Amino acid sequence: MKLLLIHSDYLEFKATEKTKIAEDTDRLEGKMEECLTVFTAVEKGDEKNQEIIVKNALDEIIKVAKNLKVNNIVVYPYAHLSSDLASPKVAKEILIEMEKRLKEVGYNVLRAPFGWYKSFKISCKGHPLSELSRKITCDMKERDEKEK
Amino acid sequence: MKLLLIHSDYLEFKATEKTKIAEDTDRLEGKMEECLTVFTAVEKGDEKNQEIIVKNALDEIIKVAKNLKVNNIVVYPYAHLSSDLASPKVAKEILIEMEKRLKEVGYNVLRAPFGWYKSFKISCKGHPLSELSRKITCDMKERDEKEK
Ligand SMILES: [Mg+2]
Ligand SMILES: [Mg+2]
Repeated sequence: MKLLLIHSDYLEFKATEKTKIAEDTDRLEGKMEECLTVFTAVEKGDEKNQEIIVKNALDEIIKVAKNLKVNNIVVYPYAHLSSDLASPKVAKEILIEMEKRLKEVGYNVLRAPFGWYKSFKISCKGHPLSELSRKITCDMKERDEKEK
Repeated sequence: MKLLLIHSDYLEFKATEKTKIAEDTDRLEGKMEECLTVFTAVEKGDEKNQEIIVKNALDEIIKVAKNLKVNNIVVYPYAHLSSDLASPKVAKEILIEMEKRLKEVGYNVLRAPFGWYKSFKISCKGHPLSELSRKITCDMKERDEKEK
């Protein structure tokens, strides 16, 4: 799984058009302020280890959110972060699970719909920890962290 | 090289802090409207083929810009798109060359400074061709295109 975590003044989106893998939803737009926007690409390798991948992804997201003292999280599907994507079905399951478990531990979570073209606006704060990329694997010891 | 091309209502940035590989520049902020924002990560493999990589990258960028009827282009360094980056020196040279050659063929170009933490705001239009990712290689036949 690839993550791009952006500490945002705001993130707003509006679903504009369905792709053929569009999720059924009536949440076609949303906005959050003072949030951690988590652009997420679920990858092929995640399919056979969904449990561990979700756990490792949440560990990273929560660690960053705590460090930034942020309680609002946007889970934003973003296939462009990877050229080795999981099936739409698995990607949707994992994204829904991430939303559910972040809420369970007390975060406000806005999840943008999977498989829709979306317009969006984002404002990145620009401090040294406001843009972080993570490669989530089953074995997080050799993870690829980018602090720049 | 990895590109993420976003057809934007606007892109604005403000350099906030230097990293140790910061470019010397007095252009610390900028804004463009109705533009193609080209988030760019120059990669290790680009180092020994700079000429061809720049040419292939420009071919892709110009093809997308023409298709979108856009004359404004933002070249925005974005290391988070890759985990296999070129040296800062080579990355800067390639980004500067891309700016120069896009201008030579008539585009308005805004290049964000390399190696600075930057705050930015972006508005993605959200139509089906408003977010495109490209992997630029020397041999563009087996390129990895993502239309979604
Ligand atoms: Mg998308
Ligand atoms: Mg950056």
